[in-house]
Amino acid sequence: MSQGLFLTLEGGEGAGKSTAARYLAERFRVLGREVVLTREPGGSPLAEAIRGLVLSSWDEGVPAETEVLLMFAARAAHLAATIRPALARGAVVISDRFVDASWAYQGAGRGVPAARLAELEAFVLGELRPDLTLVFDLPPEQGLARAHSRGDANRFEAEAMAFQQRVRQAYLDRARAAPERYALIDASLELPAVQAQLAAALEARL
Amino acid sequence: MSQGLFLTLEGGEGAGKSTAARYLAERFRVLGREVVLTREPGGSPLAEAIRGLVLSSWDEGVPAETEVLLMFAARAAHLAATIRPALARGAVVISDRFVDASWAYQGAGRGVPAARLAELEAFVLGELRPDLTLVFDLPPEQGLARAHSRGDANRFEAEAMAFQQRVRQAYLDRARAAPERYALIDASLELPAVQAQLAAALEARL
Repeated sequence: MSQGLFLTLEGGEGAGKSTAARYLAERFRVLGREVVLTREPGGSPLAEAIRGLVLSSWDEGVPAETEVLLMFAARAAHLAATIRPALARGAVVISDRFVDASWAYQGAGRGVPAARLAELEAFVLGELRPDLTLVFDLPPEQGLARAHSRGDANRFEAEAMAFQQRVRQAYLDRARAAPERYALIDASLELPAVQAQLAAALEARL
Repeated sequence: MSQGLFLTLEGGEGAGKSTAARYLAERFRVLGREVVLTREPGGSPLAEAIRGLVLSSWDEGVPAETEVLLMFAARAAHLAATIRPALARGAVVISDRFVDASWAYQGAGRGVPAARLAELEAFVLGELRPDLTLVFDLPPEQGLARAHSRGDANRFEAEAMAFQQRVRQAYLDRARAAPERYALIDASLELPAVQAQLAAALEARL
């Protein structure tokens, strides 16, 4: 049995992660690998129900503490029900967002302190980290224009441009600080050029 | 304006907390105080929606990490939307369960380490603690019999007796370790005797 492989795709809204995830899945399937395509927040029935709460707007507002705790609550269910079992049987797990999103959105975006994020990460992930994280980088104006053209602006897509810029910068900082675990993808290019970057990243890292 | 007052009621299932909460509310209302009666998990629309998820049964199970993070996510919303504003305007807040329930149910019951609970408590509560916590003590067999006669066995009421015993012992240990903040109520007695204990606890502590 092959060893499990855990890939995560990160980046702002409208950066093309879903299209890329399907492309990557196909690349592994033609090699005969089992592929589990999943997403966060979500990835199990309970985690998807939590997603429904955390992406919705609430008249009372959503405190930053509630938001980050819901994200990690969903992540713990996702890991237990989907990710860990798939990796244990040797599958390739490709997740559209994972823990880096909490550092970018709840940390840089909402101001949750790094020490709190590190505590939650240790509690929920233990030693598990993705084998490779692909960061889809795009000016937020471009990404939001694409996302809005899909007509699905959630509570995060509705945030101001300054929030989106902080999220982008956090992803860039994380990718540059640990180049062995991250690959930066220029998501402003056309699809064939993005796919070429993905292929090159897989070649180089795996 | 009077100073806000924060009372919490804790204990196993069927210990008579709801009846006691209404009795306490009436005692403060006749003194002209605004009283906010609330509960956990819940106490705001978002927190009540989280309650719906965490009390339900899920085929995938509910990991202990997910359970405790959902409880504190709901607590953060409850504090922001309901408890802190009420205390700020001088109200008496009476909550049917609060943070001690996480130490009893998720800590002693599910085995979440004390260090993790302390981290979450510091993150979500900051410096805020109840002024007085009334612990309704009852042998679990009696409490569950009462709760089941209401026909509303949730995911916690359905737990085995060993779980209920750990919950009870955790409440007793917490009450004995900080007698200035807790009052133990013998909930096995008849209603008038329970009310007399409540009145005595308020006299002595407040």
